[in-house]
Parts: sequence; C-alpha cells; structure tokens
Amino acid sequence: MQNLTMLTDLYELTMLAGYRRHGMGNRRAVFYMFYRGASELSYAVMAGNAQFKEYILGLRFSREDISYLRSLGIFEEDFLSSLEHFRFEGDIDIMPEGTIVFPGEPLVRVKAPLSQAQLIETAMLNLIGHQTLIATKGNRVSRAAKGDKVMEFGLRRAQGPDAGVLGARAAIVGGCHATSNVMAGQRFGIPVSGTHAHSWVMSFGSELEAFRAYARDFPNSCLLLVDTYDTLRSGVPNAIQVFREVRERGGKPLGIRLDSGDLAYLSREARKMLDGAGFDDTIIVASNDLDEYLIRDLKQQGARIDLWGVGTKLITSDGRSALGGVYKMSALEESGKLVPKMKLSDNPEKITLPGAQEVYRLYDANNMAIADLITLQDEVIDFAEPLTIFHPQDTWKKLRLENYTAKRLLEPMIKRGQDAGNSPSLEEIRHHREGEEATIWEQHLRLVNPQPYKVDLSDKLWQLRADIMHGQEGRA
Amino acid sequence: MQNLTMLTDLYELTMLAGYRRHGMGNRRAVFYMFYRGASELSYAVMAGNAQFKEYILGLRFSREDISYLRSLGIFEEDFLSSLEHFRFEGDIDIMPEGTIVFPGEPLVRVKAPLSQAQLIETAMLNLIGHQTLIATKGNRVSRAAKGDKVMEFGLRRAQGPDAGVLGARAAIVGGCHATSNVMAGQRFGIPVSGTHAHSWVMSFGSELEAFRAYARDFPNSCLLLVDTYDTLRSGVPNAIQVFREVRERGGKPLGIRLDSGDLAYLSREARKMLDGAGFDDTIIVASNDLDEYLIRDLKQQGARIDLWGVGTKLITSDGRSALGGVYKMSALEESGKLVPKMKLSDNPEKITLPGAQEVYRLYDANNMAIADLITLQDEVIDFAEPLTIFHPQDTWKKLRLENYTAKRLLEPMIKRGQDAGNSPSLEEIRHHREGEEATIWEQHLRLVNPQPYKVDLSDKLWQLRADIMHGQEGRA
Repeated sequence: MQNLTMLTDLYELTMLAGYRRHGMGNRRAVFYMFYRGASELSYAVMAGNAQFKEYILGLRFSREDISYLRSLGIFEEDFLSSLEHFRFEGDIDIMPEGTIVFPGEPLVRVKAPLSQAQLIETAMLNLIGHQTLIATKGNRVSRAAKGDKVMEFGLRRAQGPDAGVLGARAAIVGGCHATSNVMAGQRFGIPVSGTHAHSWVMSFGSELEAFRAYARDFPNSCLLLVDTYDTLRSGVPNAIQVFREVRERGGKPLGIRLDSGDLAYLSREARKMLDGAGFDDTIIVASNDLDEYLIRDLKQQGARIDLWGVGTKLITSDGRSALGGVYKMSALEESGKLVPKMKLSDNPEKITLPGAQEVYRLYDANNMAIADLITLQDEVIDFAEPLTIFHPQDTWKKLRLENYTAKRLLEPMIKRGQDAGNSPSLEEIRHHREGEEATIWEQHLRLVNPQPYKVDLSDKLWQLRADIMHGQEGRA
Repeated sequence: MQNLTMLTDLYELTMLAGYRRHGMGNRRAVFYMFYRGASELSYAVMAGNAQFKEYILGLRFSREDISYLRSLGIFEEDFLSSLEHFRFEGDIDIMPEGTIVFPGEPLVRVKAPLSQAQLIETAMLNLIGHQTLIATKGNRVSRAAKGDKVMEFGLRRAQGPDAGVLGARAAIVGGCHATSNVMAGQRFGIPVSGTHAHSWVMSFGSELEAFRAYARDFPNSCLLLVDTYDTLRSGVPNAIQVFREVRERGGKPLGIRLDSGDLAYLSREARKMLDGAGFDDTIIVASNDLDEYLIRDLKQQGARIDLWGVGTKLITSDGRSALGGVYKMSALEESGKLVPKMKLSDNPEKITLPGAQEVYRLYDANNMAIADLITLQDEVIDFAEPLTIFHPQDTWKKLRLENYTAKRLLEPMIKRGQDAGNSPSLEEIRHHREGEEATIWEQHLRLVNPQPYKVDLSDKLWQLRADIMHGQEGRA
C-alpha cells in the first residue's frame, strides 16, 4: 500500500497547527470510533485493521508533502518543520477483525497526544469504515446463501482500484470464499477463480466451438457460460454435448454459469436437462446483479443454484454505501488530569459518550451473547457477581444476569507507537468471524427487521453522561 | 498511481491463455464500453480518462506478477513467459473528460489484437466507471445548488483511499469547487479547504474560547462551526461576539458552519442574528448528509445557505453506487476480415451493438444538442444534407433535420499503443464540461423524471443489428 500520511482532510492540519500554536498539541487525549446504526447495519463485521495498522506505522510527512503544504500559504514555518518529525506515539486498542460489532459501541480507542489522535481520524474512518462495510455486506450475502459458496466478482464495478482490492479482502473476512480479483489474490493470498466471458463465446465461429475449445484447455474445471445466445435452446444443449465429449476423453466437467434471465426458472430447467443427460454431478453457478435479498428469494423459489457470483452490489454495498463511522474526542488532559468530554448536538443521536471506555461482551451459560456493556476503562466491575444491566434510554428496561461470563472486546493494536504484535492471517480472521457468528442469536443477524442487540452502559458511564449533559446545557 | 496491470479478473487471463493456445490472440478485435441507463443516470459526465491512460501506458507484468500467476498452477509456461513482453499496442478512442454522455452509446472504442483488447476490460470499467459515476453525482449536486459553490467533503466515508482521492478529482470534473482532501489537492492541484471540527471546540474550556483561538489564527478566513453544544443559543451568539472582536482588530470574519439539526430553520434564524449584528457580509456553510435532493428541498424551503459541504452521499454516489458500465466485443477478424459481432441475451436490454462504431452529436442552429447518432465507423454520412433519424426500438418515431451541424464525439487517446497527445488539465476539463452543459436542454438534465435524450442508430447500423439478430436466432 502506498504511504497514506496525506490521506487526510485539510481541517485536521489546520487544527494541528492551531493546537501547536496554543501549546495544546501534546495534551493527552482519548478518542473513540463507533458507527451509527441503520437497518442493514444492525450488526457489522469488523475489518480493515491490518491496513489501518500499516498506515499508523508508516505515518510520516515526506519533504514533498511538506513543500506542498507550504505552497498552500496557510501554515507557519514552525508548524511545517514540526511535521518532519511527526510520528504516532500513542496507544490504539481495537475490536479484532472478524468480530461482530454493534452500533454505538467503541470499535477503536485511541489514547495519544491531541495532535496525533486528531490527525489519524480521516484515514482511520476511511480504511476501517470501508472494509467493515464490505465485510458486513459479504456476511449478509453469505448468510443468505446458507452454506453455498459465494464468489466476489465486483472489481470492475468497484469505486476505484482500492475499493476493488481492499473490498475483496473484506468480502473474504465477511464470509465469501474466493474472488475474481487477481491483485487481491496476489496481495492477500485469497483464492482466485474465474472462467470465461461472453466475448470468449463470441470469438469463435459458434458457441459449440467456443465451449469445445474451453473444455480442451480446462478438462477438469470446465465451467461454461451458457447465456450468450439463448440459454435453454443453445447454451445448455451445447454444454451437454461438450460435457459428453469431455467425459469420453476421461475428464470431469465442472458445470455451467447463468448470467441473465429468470435465474429461478432457468436454473431449474437447466438442472433437469443436465440431470437427464447424466450430468447430475455438475454445478450451476449464477450471477447477474445479485445481493442478499435476491439470493434469499431465489432459494425460496426453488432455484437450483450451487454457487453464487456476487459483484456490483457486494463490492459497493449497494443501498448502504457507507458505514457512517465517526470518531469523537471523549477525554482531554486539563491541568494534568484527563477530563471526560462529549459532544452535544441538535440531533440527539449525534450525542457521544464521555471518558476512556471499555467494552465487554456478556455470554450466557451456553456461550451465547446476551449484551455488550460499555464501561469506563478505569471502572472495576466484579463479573463474578450478579449484574443488572439497563437500557441506556429506556432505563426501566432492566435485566439481571447471574450465570454469565464477560469478555473484553478491545485488544491492543499499537502500544506507544509500536506494533503491539497481533497480525492474524486472513484464515485466522475468518475462523474468528465464524466463531463470533456462532455466539450471536439469529434474530440479531437476520436480513430484515432484526431484533436490536443490547448495548448497555455501566451505571457509572450512564451517570457521567447525564451529569455532563445537564452541566453543559446550563453553560449554553 | 501504483502500477495496475494486475488489477484484473482472473478470467481475463484464462481467456488470454486460451486465445494464445488457439492462435487467436493476435486477431484484430473491436470492443466498446457503454453504460446502461437508470433514472439517476439519464445522463453522465465522462471522467477517469487520465487514470485509464496512465494504466494503459504502464501496462506490463513484473517478474513478481508472473511468479504469482505461475503459483496458481493453471497456466502453461509458454503463456506465462509471453506475458513478460505483453504491451498494449492498439488504438483507443474515447469521449473527452467532462463530456455529457448518454446510456447505450460508445464511450470508449478499442481496436487492438484480441488479447490486448480483452485484458484491459476490468481496469477500464473500474477507473472510468467509478470516476464517471462520481462526476455525474457531483454534477447533480452542483446543479441542485444553482450557482452556489459545493465543497467535496467525503474522504472519510469513501470506499477506500482511491475512492476518496480519485473521487475528489471526479467531483471537480462534475462541477464541485474544492475538496477537503489533502492528497487529492497534492496530486491533482485541486483547491483544498477546511476549518475545524467539533473536537476543536471540545478541546478548549468553552466554545467562546475555542472560537477566539481559531479567529486569532485565521483572522480573515475565520469560519466557525456553531453546533457543538447548541446552535442558536450558544454557537451563533458566541460566533457573533468573536466576529466583533475580529472586526475591532481590523480582520474580516468569513462566516459560520451548520452541521446538524433543521438546516432550513437554523440557517434562516442564524442569518437574522448575523445580519442583526451587522455581519450581513458573512456566509453560512451547511453540511450533514446532504445530496442533490436535500439541497433542492432546502433551497425551496428558503434556507439561507451560501456554500454546501457534501460528503458521504457524493463520494459514494449514494443510492446508485455503480455506473453499470459494460465492455463488449463488436467485431473480430476472421480470415483477414473484420466481422461484426454482438451479444444476444435472455435480457433484451443486454443485447449489444455490432461493428466498429462512431458517435456524432447533432446540434440545431442555436447550438443546442438534438440527438446523438451512432453510425458504423466506415459509414459516410453527408451531414451537409438533410437527415432523418429514428428511434432504435420504436422506428416509426422519426425526426427530419435540415439546419443542423454534427460533431464527432470519440477522440483519439492511444494510437498504436502510444499516447495520442491529449492530456487536458482539470481546469480545461471543467471548462469543457461547462460548455457541454450549455448545449443540453434542461429537461434532459433534471433531477427527477428527466426526458430521455435521443440516441439513435444510423440506418446501416440498425440494419446490421437486425440482420445479425435474425441470423443468430436461426443458429440457436
């Protein structure tokens, strides 16, 4: 990945210059990242940590960067030369990639000198927000496919090269099995797959000739695209003829791909034709603007599809094109002491949480998640004792827990500016995500009208928030 | 930009290997790119050509790339070693950046040996598709703002780093005036702008103190974010107090920014307060999940907003997250002769156009565009004579043109693999786009229910298409 130090909004730099001028840049600060919910994002699959860490460790302004900033004519020389030595020297704790996360809870906690904590905002939200969005979509699509494999196909429709390559990685984190994207395969070791396009068929004198040529090249992985001219009258019969030839030569044909038309009808008819010709061991792959809703519907309609190629709507998270991640200050050093901070707002849902926080997931005796509990970081809660949790708005909604366990969710990623050690492989991340899904009740993960998962505040955090809200209302 | 040779789908490479094996890779081929319409894409603003050209000129497989492909175990050594010398040596003609384009018409025409024309598909669709999508969104947002300036703000919510940086460029092509994105400013010379965030306000003992500090730093470009605590009871009064102090010191305050709440109401009230205090020369900037529809509505509601900051919904083209570009073969050399090709399909709208094509825009005597006409490239049409054009489906819809002029829209970008010379600056591209907008009737560009612009086929192209449809139907 190229160096992303300059991947920032100008206001981060004008604020850094201001903090420096006012002697505030080195004050200890705490910020946290979270996302605001929405129906398709009632849960999300955390992703992008690896690229975010790479960004943090590579953070430095080159001479060219500083020259460019000088050319803007808005920064003092003193500030510009300070950028030469700018490094990130703080601590970052983060939800591991593949973790199932929920709206409102801290996904990333940053403790660093104010300027450092501020600068990283834009790149963090970009990298984590994008990959978490696509991992979540990949998870929804994979869950709709109910065990069938899903191929990520979307590079050509992605929002630029990174969106394709990092998006393919995120789709795998979320649950997809392979990608068509060669660069993603090379960079991340993701399985790549792909066969041929309509242009292959059009390049030969006839569809039959094109199929024959492809089958000779790939006798044991021969997957034929059957909709270039007419799926049931031309494509499937030609495929069957070529499959017979392959079998006579001792090969084992793989199957067909449908890319247009009524996939439920065509797949059922194609299945009958293939089975009738003795090719019941071949598969049917389908593509064509699929998403989780279409896959669910096609399965309900009895489509006979074994493998799903999902492109545009997965790689762009169509219908919900951004996670909506935000990054807010929650504490700042004043006279040597960390003081909790929060943002009020005319939009109540934009009010944030104060203080340095911790997030615990509470599990029942069967290891199913009951709720997440956000506490103050320095708060000591005895999880060996029974615990009463309550809804952060409707505080009369209470739940008393007795036989439960608690797990801390944020893990160290950067410690004093250095790599804190955890760099799981994509395979480990997938494995973690599978484990996570097994602990969350289905009703929180369903595609439509999911039951909101409980994310509660500790008494102390709730009280601190209430105190500040009233205090600041008074001040206005 | 990094080298993007490996930014491809695996099937492009399996097809290349197949074409090589069957001795077809060097046959002359013609492909074209177009996009399929949709209501938000009744027109589009062409963009991304510069990055696409950079990709083409840099196309070469490194030793590491070839090693990676070898490791997949699906390619023959002969094919792998041929990739070492792989270059693009064909011709590419393209609609210039900033051109207003319409569904179904060729935006890019590629004439090259089959393998070369095939390989570039994925990266072309990615680069042109993404930037054209965002330029179009930027144009819609700018048109809704009716002359007010629009700032692109979306980097943090973009789908990865490239989506932010190339998206900022595209937004400028489409009509936005500046970006918050420092990397885009550095790379493309786009004006950058930005002030401060809520965290600035929260870093000081009070809002007033924070405003004072900022105003001292930027006495003549002081734009204050007034919604951290309470817009009308705290933010605006504090801003006015600081503006008075700035004015007393001889400075000229710039204005305020609203980022939450009812922007129509708050901007009207804030305007009254600012005017009442003698600051009628200050501006009001608004942001908060804006898009073209919200901007139009806010203007209809009498909002007093002078400058619009548009983030998430612009940079992701929310609601229409992909252009839906496709790239299809339209002719292939057979026995030394170029033979027209087209794709039939079970989805009629997926049927393509055969042959090497040309696109002309026809203008009336007032230089307003009447229609685009797609012809065969080798077709000679005497545009000095009257011309009858007809609807490609409803062929009884005819229009006879007498006093008109014609302009060829595709321009050379790559000639025999070399740069054909045209590399307009972003400023020139913006200027071209402004000129284009002046020639297209408002009804084709409106936000909702636009009148479809006429894109017709020449008699010869229409006839060729009909002949092939019937011929191939027979063959199936």
